[in-house]
Amino acid sequence: MTTSPSSRFMKCLQYAAHQHRDQRRKDPPQTPYVNHVINVSTILAVEACIEDEAVLMAALLHDVVEDTDATFADVEQLLGGDVCGLVREVTDDKSLEKQERKRLQIANAAKTSPRAKLIKLADKLDNLRDLLVNTPQGWTEERRELYFVWAKQVVDNLRGTNANLEHKLDEIFRQRGLL
Amino acid sequence: MTTSPSSRFMKCLQYAAHQHRDQRRKDPPQTPYVNHVINVSTILAVEACIEDEAVLMAALLHDVVEDTDATFADVEQLLGGDVCGLVREVTDDKSLEKQERKRLQIANAAKTSPRAKLIKLADKLDNLRDLLVNTPQGWTEERRELYFVWAKQVVDNLRGTNANLEHKLDEIFRQRGLL
Repeated sequence: MTTSPSSRFMKCLQYAAHQHRDQRRKDPPQTPYVNHVINVSTILAVEACIEDEAVLMAALLHDVVEDTDATFADVEQLLGGDVCGLVREVTDDKSLEKQERKRLQIANAAKTSPRAKLIKLADKLDNLRDLLVNTPQGWTEERRELYFVWAKQVVDNLRGTNANLEHKLDEIFRQRGLL
Repeated sequence: MTTSPSSRFMKCLQYAAHQHRDQRRKDPPQTPYVNHVINVSTILAVEACIEDEAVLMAALLHDVVEDTDATFADVEQLLGGDVCGLVREVTDDKSLEKQERKRLQIANAAKTSPRAKLIKLADKLDNLRDLLVNTPQGWTEERRELYFVWAKQVVDNLRGTNANLEHKLDEIFRQRGLL
């Protein structure tokens, strides 16, 4: 017996695609940004075996407040407080300087709830997979290397959350000589 | 109790997004093409209340063989014969001339299975909603008007399938003076 995705999940997916419609990834072919949030949600469902619908929905929306005109109130109205709370936990404060946001990602990782940690791990895994094959437009090789170093510092503060994801991240860190 | 989407559904979604990654809609902001297939699947889940997972997956893949390098064999290997059979029913034969393909869409609509008819109705509904607000790049107003006329001929051969979708399509046809 297969179970079809809920109406709520489909509304969430459509909302994510709509909100990110004008945004592209920084890879040379300018992949639609929505592909990244779909990858993060799919990593959680397929590679981490997560069956928590709210986590999969929050993964689809993990950048929607940070990068589009969506607000937490919009997310709460559409999908309720549980999903909105998770999105809040994985959203950087864009009023801060970029370096300060990066520092806070390391510092805040350990304080995050276990469900939001899953999203952060899957987000890093997809970003690092991209970085292994593409240098983002406008990035130097040094900036790319420093991203791996920084990502490992964040991941080190998220450990003990999901063995599959951490194993896959460690394979990448090992490949880059960071483990 | 909420049910999370299956791994299979998420793999299907990721595959659709990946395959359509370089394709854009013909609207002026060049919306990612994947937004259209997400809309079609969401229309079925939310507006037509369809809980048949294979139909929702085939909706995500309804243009993947027509418009990308994916083959029916790829779809069958990834998602099995049931989904592949539905995708086959909604795929135009691109080796034919465009006018002949359009004629065949009208002629073949009535012979389609009820599940594939749902996908065809939702596809037309999303395309017509787009056309109501955008003239595709390179289209004249006349070409736009003729699309509504042609779409109604296809839809007329798909009737008796889903009252909600047909009602929403009829509202559009009425608005355009075709009903």
